[in-house]
Amino acid sequence: MLGRTYDKEVCSAARALEIAGERWSLLILRNAAFAGMTRFTDFQKSLDIAPNVLAARLEHFVETEIMTTSPGPEGYPTYHLTKKGLDFKPVIIALTEWGDRWSAPDGPPIVYEHEECGGRVRHTLYCKRCGERPRPQDVSARKTAVMEKIRRRSRS
Amino acid sequence: MLGRTYDKEVCSAARALEIAGERWSLLILRNAAFAGMTRFTDFQKSLDIAPNVLAARLEHFVETEIMTTSPGPEGYPTYHLTKKGLDFKPVIIALTEWGDRWSAPDGPPIVYEHEECGGRVRHTLYCKRCGERPRPQDVSARKTAVMEKIRRRSRS
Repeated sequence: MLGRTYDKEVCSAARALEIAGERWSLLILRNAAFAGMTRFTDFQKSLDIAPNVLAARLEHFVETEIMTTSPGPEGYPTYHLTKKGLDFKPVIIALTEWGDRWSAPDGPPIVYEHEECGGRVRHTLYCKRCGERPRPQDVSARKTAVMEKIRRRSRS
Repeated sequence: MLGRTYDKEVCSAARALEIAGERWSLLILRNAAFAGMTRFTDFQKSLDIAPNVLAARLEHFVETEIMTTSPGPEGYPTYHLTKKGLDFKPVIIALTEWGDRWSAPDGPPIVYEHEECGGRVRHTLYCKRCGERPRPQDVSARKTAVMEKIRRRSRS
């Protein structure tokens, strides 16, 4: 029992969620990352999302440097993922694999492919020391000195 | 440009989000999976979450078979992750690594360890065909026959 290993302010998963954890945000990121969408109208039509909600989400992505915006050929703004935004793709793949395993009774509607060879791309855990792929139940969390440092700072 | 590759109803990532994508849900799962929490009061204190919200989230986890509930030694219910719930750990690890890279200026407050050897656990993408670890920008999504089947069914 790790007790206070986690602190809601001091956790990278929580921070990631602050930025991209809201349902619409993740679906927008998904469509930008894997369906190549860049235009407001394409996000809007594909997700059936309220325009004001979409505008707020895209603005938030630009503010947090997940996307950049620039005028498209027709003058309307287009939105493009930055390196930080592209780096979210493995999270989406991990989510998809979980959904495939546990709530896709017909089988996976989408597969991820390696563009260079056409092979199927999967997500996995690996151990940097022994090289094995640990089972989820064999992985635990340990707080680092950074956690203590941030906590001391927030108390003072 | 894959256009209608994604459909909001036919996507395992979207389905996974329906179950665990809400911010509180993910923090509850995280504390159950990595801090060993099982009791209502422990979740409540650690997250500073409103009791009615916590009760609803836990109930939803039991309904969707992410958790089971049973009476603890003091008579109060305890909550335990099922295999489906434990299998969400890699998603949390993927979220954490993204947060570590992009919004943890002091360094990672938490690290994940392989219990068998004490090594650091990371997540990665790998290609089943060539064995390489593709960069996020080299991974694309392709719809399968399942997608078409579900779409035909939903139209009819």
